[in-house]
Amino acid sequence: MDARRISILGVGLLGGSIGLAVRSAIKGCSIVGYGHRTSTLEAALKRGVIDEGFDKVDRAVEGADLVILCTPVGTFNGLLPLMTPALTATAIVTDVGSTKRSVVRWANEHLPRPERFVGSHPMAGSEKRGVEFARADLFQNAVCLTTPTAETDGQVLETVERFWRLLGMRLTRLSPDEHDRLIGRVSHLPHAVAAALVAMQSDASLGLAGKGFMDATRIAGGDGGLWRDILVDNRDNVREGIEQLKGQLDRLLGLLEKEDGIGVEEWLSAAAERRAGMG
Amino acid sequence: MDARRISILGVGLLGGSIGLAVRSAIKGCSIVGYGHRTSTLEAALKRGVIDEGFDKVDRAVEGADLVILCTPVGTFNGLLPLMTPALTATAIVTDVGSTKRSVVRWANEHLPRPERFVGSHPMAGSEKRGVEFARADLFQNAVCLTTPTAETDGQVLETVERFWRLLGMRLTRLSPDEHDRLIGRVSHLPHAVAAALVAMQSDASLGLAGKGFMDATRIAGGDGGLWRDILVDNRDNVREGIEQLKGQLDRLLGLLEKEDGIGVEEWLSAAAERRAGMG
Repeated sequence: MDARRISILGVGLLGGSIGLAVRSAIKGCSIVGYGHRTSTLEAALKRGVIDEGFDKVDRAVEGADLVILCTPVGTFNGLLPLMTPALTATAIVTDVGSTKRSVVRWANEHLPRPERFVGSHPMAGSEKRGVEFARADLFQNAVCLTTPTAETDGQVLETVERFWRLLGMRLTRLSPDEHDRLIGRVSHLPHAVAAALVAMQSDASLGLAGKGFMDATRIAGGDGGLWRDILVDNRDNVREGIEQLKGQLDRLLGLLEKEDGIGVEEWLSAAAERRAGMG
Repeated sequence: MDARRISILGVGLLGGSIGLAVRSAIKGCSIVGYGHRTSTLEAALKRGVIDEGFDKVDRAVEGADLVILCTPVGTFNGLLPLMTPALTATAIVTDVGSTKRSVVRWANEHLPRPERFVGSHPMAGSEKRGVEFARADLFQNAVCLTTPTAETDGQVLETVERFWRLLGMRLTRLSPDEHDRLIGRVSHLPHAVAAALVAMQSDASLGLAGKGFMDATRIAGGDGGLWRDILVDNRDNVREGIEQLKGQLDRLLGLLEKEDGIGVEEWLSAAAERRAGMG
């Protein structure tokens, strides 16, 4: 990786972890952070996540070889036009957003050289938030999805993928459409369901929650603003996922209605085997 | 605890863990096991979970002070009449089943002294199955629900609760109705939902599952036969839970339809705060 200056826009859990991981993986690279709150920048400086911090996005991207958008997805459309005047001609831009169709479209609309943008989705994180939970090893052995398009420069794509690989990630390429469809089903929908499982409880039932409920709803503890952006942006796929989930639950209800024990067990065991195969 | 002879009917994960926990908590107590498979009894003997094993339930309860039903809930109605001829007049009977209305009704129907039966639901376990996963500390700091009725002998209730306390559990009393309603919502419904979340995935989406999906669906790895009995027995509450979950998801869909970001964030943040409060 030949980046000498990396700009991280948004130094929360993900951005902060990128800073720490870059520090241990790439020697002699200076790390610049953007944050709209001074307190966040100060915390990031104190933790050694960044070398310099700016609350103006154009200042933060000046002279950077690689710019990584790490703020909530809903802010990208506003940040991209602010940074374009200060971007160098050779700068590569990527992001860590959990949705990709809109992000790629906004990059195409706003960046002077959209071929130098690659959508990335490093599948690492936690329900925790803030730079205080940043970890240098957050990305180790996790999967990073990239979503190149026909316009993406091949060299740029390889540079971005090499960057994530240096942080310990395994790479998979998908189209932006495929990404949002598959991740909507296996990540965004489960998040909505976990929140719904919490929301439907009474205080009395919540007081009896065991380990199973705690595991099943851990993701519901995630940042509301971050997930608002994701669910709103990917709402068509979330809607489809909810319909599919309802279909499965209606199938179970039909079997229970008939007291069809064999059918219920088959349905449960098929899921149990599939889940057990995942470790 | 003055039990000199404890009979454990079903020596899987829960029954086996009771055996190990009794051994370390109650000295000089002999532990008898029942299992319908010789291989299970042999494994339990080998692990030191039981002192003697029988594949006939009447032999296993002979002379026992305390009998604990640890087989799947659906077998209780068949086991209870088989054991009654061999029960001593002073024997106390309890169980570890995850539903309670039917269990209490069956005990009333079949036991010669139903006042000496207490329904118990130790809320410990795992998606693992079999005596090889039994652990002496499985019950430490976990909650045990008891479901006494107007007929239950007060001394018997206290003895059963003292027994679970000796194994490290915290006790809560509920009526059988309340138990099934609250546990249906906070445990049985989440299990059904986890299975549905797995069932609705394609191989492609499942291949992209991250830590969040793994946590959210861990319980779906549980024993299909065990959970069939639970869901069939508690189907009215599971049905109500599914309707409540659908209601929450429909609320989210309505907000997404309107692109009401504030509403989505409020809904998510309310769940996140509630979940964060649980640790």
